[in-house]
Amino acid sequence: MSGADQYSVLFAPVKIGPVTARNRFYQVPHCNGLGHLRPQAEAAMRAMKAEGGWAVVSTQEAEIHPTSDLSPYSENRIWDDRDIPALRLITNAVKEKGSLAAIQLAHNGHHAQNHLSRAPLLAPSELALQTAYPKQARAMDKTDIREFRKWHRAAARRSREAGFNIVYVYAGHHMTLPHHFLLPQFNDRTDEYGGSLENRVRLTRELLEETREEVGDDCAIALRFAVDELLGTDGMQAQEEGRAVVELLAELPDLWDVNVADWSNDSATTRFEPRDGFQTSYIEFVKQVTSKPVVGVGRLTSPDLMVSLVKKGILDFIGAARPSIADPFLPNKIKEGRIEEIRECIGCNICVSSDALGVPIRCTQNPTMGEEWRRGWHPEIIENRGKEETALVVGSGPAGLECAMQLARRGYEVTLAEAKQELGGRVLQESGLAGLSAWKRVTDHRIYDLQQRGNVQMFTDSRLSASDVVELGIPNVFLATGAPWRRDGRGKSAFHGISISSGTQVFTPDDIMSGVLPGGGPILVYDDDQAYLGGVLADHLAQTGREIIFVTPASMVSPFTELTLEQTKVQRSLLEKGVRLVMSHTLASVAPGTANVQCVYTAREHAIECGSVVLVTQRMRETDLYDELRGLSESPLTKLDLIGDAANPGLIADAVYSGHMAARNFERDAGDIDREFFRREIVSLETV
Amino acid sequence: MSGADQYSVLFAPVKIGPVTARNRFYQVPHCNGLGHLRPQAEAAMRAMKAEGGWAVVSTQEAEIHPTSDLSPYSENRIWDDRDIPALRLITNAVKEKGSLAAIQLAHNGHHAQNHLSRAPLLAPSELALQTAYPKQARAMDKTDIREFRKWHRAAARRSREAGFNIVYVYAGHHMTLPHHFLLPQFNDRTDEYGGSLENRVRLTRELLEETREEVGDDCAIALRFAVDELLGTDGMQAQEEGRAVVELLAELPDLWDVNVADWSNDSATTRFEPRDGFQTSYIEFVKQVTSKPVVGVGRLTSPDLMVSLVKKGILDFIGAARPSIADPFLPNKIKEGRIEEIRECIGCNICVSSDALGVPIRCTQNPTMGEEWRRGWHPEIIENRGKEETALVVGSGPAGLECAMQLARRGYEVTLAEAKQELGGRVLQESGLAGLSAWKRVTDHRIYDLQQRGNVQMFTDSRLSASDVVELGIPNVFLATGAPWRRDGRGKSAFHGISISSGTQVFTPDDIMSGVLPGGGPILVYDDDQAYLGGVLADHLAQTGREIIFVTPASMVSPFTELTLEQTKVQRSLLEKGVRLVMSHTLASVAPGTANVQCVYTAREHAIECGSVVLVTQRMRETDLYDELRGLSESPLTKLDLIGDAANPGLIADAVYSGHMAARNFERDAGDIDREFFRREIVSLETV
Repeated sequence: MSGADQYSVLFAPVKIGPVTARNRFYQVPHCNGLGHLRPQAEAAMRAMKAEGGWAVVSTQEAEIHPTSDLSPYSENRIWDDRDIPALRLITNAVKEKGSLAAIQLAHNGHHAQNHLSRAPLLAPSELALQTAYPKQARAMDKTDIREFRKWHRAAARRSREAGFNIVYVYAGHHMTLPHHFLLPQFNDRTDEYGGSLENRVRLTRELLEETREEVGDDCAIALRFAVDELLGTDGMQAQEEGRAVVELLAELPDLWDVNVADWSNDSATTRFEPRDGFQTSYIEFVKQVTSKPVVGVGRLTSPDLMVSLVKKGILDFIGAARPSIADPFLPNKIKEGRIEEIRECIGCNICVSSDALGVPIRCTQNPTMGEEWRRGWHPEIIENRGKEETALVVGSGPAGLECAMQLARRGYEVTLAEAKQELGGRVLQESGLAGLSAWKRVTDHRIYDLQQRGNVQMFTDSRLSASDVVELGIPNVFLATGAPWRRDGRGKSAFHGISISSGTQVFTPDDIMSGVLPGGGPILVYDDDQAYLGGVLADHLAQTGREIIFVTPASMVSPFTELTLEQTKVQRSLLEKGVRLVMSHTLASVAPGTANVQCVYTAREHAIECGSVVLVTQRMRETDLYDELRGLSESPLTKLDLIGDAANPGLIADAVYSGHMAARNFERDAGDIDREFFRREIVSLETV
Repeated sequence: MSGADQYSVLFAPVKIGPVTARNRFYQVPHCNGLGHLRPQAEAAMRAMKAEGGWAVVSTQEAEIHPTSDLSPYSENRIWDDRDIPALRLITNAVKEKGSLAAIQLAHNGHHAQNHLSRAPLLAPSELALQTAYPKQARAMDKTDIREFRKWHRAAARRSREAGFNIVYVYAGHHMTLPHHFLLPQFNDRTDEYGGSLENRVRLTRELLEETREEVGDDCAIALRFAVDELLGTDGMQAQEEGRAVVELLAELPDLWDVNVADWSNDSATTRFEPRDGFQTSYIEFVKQVTSKPVVGVGRLTSPDLMVSLVKKGILDFIGAARPSIADPFLPNKIKEGRIEEIRECIGCNICVSSDALGVPIRCTQNPTMGEEWRRGWHPEIIENRGKEETALVVGSGPAGLECAMQLARRGYEVTLAEAKQELGGRVLQESGLAGLSAWKRVTDHRIYDLQQRGNVQMFTDSRLSASDVVELGIPNVFLATGAPWRRDGRGKSAFHGISISSGTQVFTPDDIMSGVLPGGGPILVYDDDQAYLGGVLADHLAQTGREIIFVTPASMVSPFTELTLEQTKVQRSLLEKGVRLVMSHTLASVAPGTANVQCVYTAREHAIECGSVVLVTQRMRETDLYDELRGLSESPLTKLDLIGDAANPGLIADAVYSGHMAARNFERDAGDIDREFFRREIVSLETV
């Protein structure tokens, strides 16, 4: 069977109430940090999904009223008519590409903080914010509920006016009023909106009915609902109340978009949930209960799994957020039988982290994500080369591989030289650690692509000196030489390094990743980086059965992983493995057998016995080759570019982005690059 | 001597290079969360300062280039010409009121994170971000430094084009490249920009010279410089290198704006630095070294202190950020001898917290702050009353007092009834705790104002029932009945409360604030609120010499106080008093003599011996009177409004705001209020 035949079931049109999706690929609502602050960027990003074959393309959550104000996070906003033009950009762009546009209406209750609007906080019950900000929501009275329903109706009307084909009622992720009303962990009302499930579901039912009254003739109504909270008997369970909710509302919406709560469970990372399709066991009952089409998610990237989910009657639509970010052209690639070309989501949640920071979305796998409008980057199209014909890329980490791949796509003859015996750089190293194996897709995808091309030569075990480079005679050189971890303790907390007595067993993350296991006695992992690697290494080492002491100046393990929705799981994992945690302490000095740590608050020191120390502090850019080449008195080079971690150490996503940018900018006019930097979205000075 | 004579020295014009300030009141640059996302709001806020008499009004820091991108925080931005129109709004508005407009140009080096721009991070040396985000800045090479100087020149040119009269070079707060170059804690270069002080100051000198070349004919050049890092010999000290810097650059700028670093020291709260003028001892040398005018700060609100600082030759200008926020009309009030009418800054740093959240500024004392444009609120002007003539306000906490004061200013006959024996509500309670005495200014200011008016009657010891209210015959009723703390443990972590065995000694914050000292055995303070009060209470109780155990689900003490720049000081204070900290644990149950706490990660429980428990969890709105009045079958009331904590528990600032809003909205058309909500600033859909 050809690709197209094998997967043809995925390309059958499906009716959703009054509208029809051209195939079964459905980009469910997802945050992206573009939103109302960056409407043109969001429209272009959503349009790219439509162009790539997603039959339905949804917005992120759209705040329906100033009492649901998520500032400084930039979601969509549909407070009043002033928001319609920005939303119409999205619907026009998506519909032009033949897809349906969906909007996820949201009132976030006490999940919103209303910091911009300063409006009252609303909730089913008296509830404090989950953040440390000392504001409380009031239990909505009947007037509040009536007002809220009016706002939701008005937002539905505006949605239709803005051109949306599908309007969501959103009861998921612990993030919205309908969900808060549904769940006993937020609702202890004693009136007709509390107590029995019938009562708790009342608000969702009313919203569905009222949305249909407002827009049901030509818009479909979708219900996004979390069937399980993954709290066992402490929460809603798919086979208990989760099923009962679907039974109660079965035919009311035109489409069921089902998942699990909270967000960290729905968007689980591969580190803690490696299985594609991990939500299937929770959501598979839904189609047995309703005749309406069902969309589900679970990092679905494998076309075979997709076909099986449809054929088994589990899903009508293949839902995706993250896989559609990593590869907006996933549907088209399946349709055209180009399975190997799919850029698979690695499940790292860097996309989520941007939303959590209130800045534009980025993706480790897809460096064009979020850059469609402001830089005009297309994930599948890149300009042909200019007058230059060849390029040398030194280093095959994420920056080098991406740069080489894009240069090759532009038509240059590309030579890629790697000093080590295997391609992949830091990705190869990090993906060998416990929980990170899926990250290897970053290099797998690129190496595979490079191998298919006739204009690429790749060399391993090929450390190049400056004279080697000159002798190669390739005038355009991109150096992606990376940044190994420092061995001197220099980091956020110790600009001048740490006092290390001679004879101390000191290791770096690179040592551990290359397979070294420190010798006898407890291993002290010192994490002044505070991102993810310190926690991963401690977990990895703990799995060898060794005694681990984890010291960090931060107040928690891996605070960066709050942004990727993993922090609770990271710290739990270490505690459950018996790792001893020493929070809020810097490492003052180390000597054989002992480490002195210092409280960040009081500067009090105490000693900790340990056999060895792993320093996760800061990285050291490898620039020797760059410096040598730059220092040549008569350089034969036309272009010399330092990229990736060697230029600015960062995330793997940053390295990929840097490599991509270098390839795009090659042979562009330097003045143009500087002058344009990127297109900007600026606040209007018109009064509205 | 009359007020005007006594303070006339403060109103002498002062020359600053080519421009002249009309008096000595100088609003130094300060953040406000309005910035480039809310340019009209910022312009109106700055204009209000000018109207209130500040002779110089500065912007907040203005990012000069995409490599200095502070997103999601909204400062000013002057990346390119596209930013000029928004800045011109500010200069026009400020100059129309007769003041000089200053702009603080900033390149934030590795203090920026460049999350929006994704541009490379720059620093004097190889430096990791101070946040947990795993990006590093590269040590700038000579090309980078040349580029940076070009960007700064270009920003200076744009500043002049936008109409500014004073252009800053900014070397302060540990926040900018010139400051990073100056300080050995960030600079370990070995070239002519590192090592000796002469070398480290080179960049600042170049910027001053180049800014003068660009705009010096008609703009003054200011240098903002932190003379001391408050790190003792580990940092720059006012009498050592701090003085040497001023000597090296003495006559180069037209004005010295001097303070201390870092920001938490410059903007110290009254809780940890109660003295007005606390920076004087650090900055008093400056005028001995330079002939140029000097501006300094230190929460200067007392006109007598101001006069003395000028007469002693310490300052030429009375600098202010926070006092100008609490009272934009401070200069005019001094000029007109209306000293008692000044709304004194309480030093709580709620203004700072909004910037730290990336949302518009707010102020505990001045509820109109940040609302000048979007709501049209003027701090000194309020609409006269309509056809209604009387109003009853029940409760004299921050909401009740503000509401009563504004209603009185509008011309209503106001009756204020307080159940307790003293006016002030929660402010009276909280300001009795260690460190918070300055907060009493919130009620002092309002009670004084109310006492001056002939149309106000205030009653203490007057708890009103619904029938009392009806009998009073006042048809317009505002209820500010507050929200005492719960005694059942319900909070963020325990929606259904905590299991409390009978006989357990359980106290609430209200008990402690009313003077109760729990009996024998250690006192366990359980802080599920996580804002400020739990930490304050623990500190307060520790000062009685009792053994204190502090338990919180948070990973640090009072995480909210990170937003007010106090967290480090809060936790240090508890540790130094010997308070035992149990972080990341909830309180599962309490019984006489024992508390069971549970790890938030593993759910493991352990017991802690204690004699009593203070529950800082959540507040309970006091709505009995409201409910009774609402329930009256034939209500004689025209207006019944629930305000302040009784409506939505929050900060004191929120309560004041709520009282202010209720007074402003009284007799406005309900439809108007709903339709307008507030004026909005929305991103342009024009391509720029």
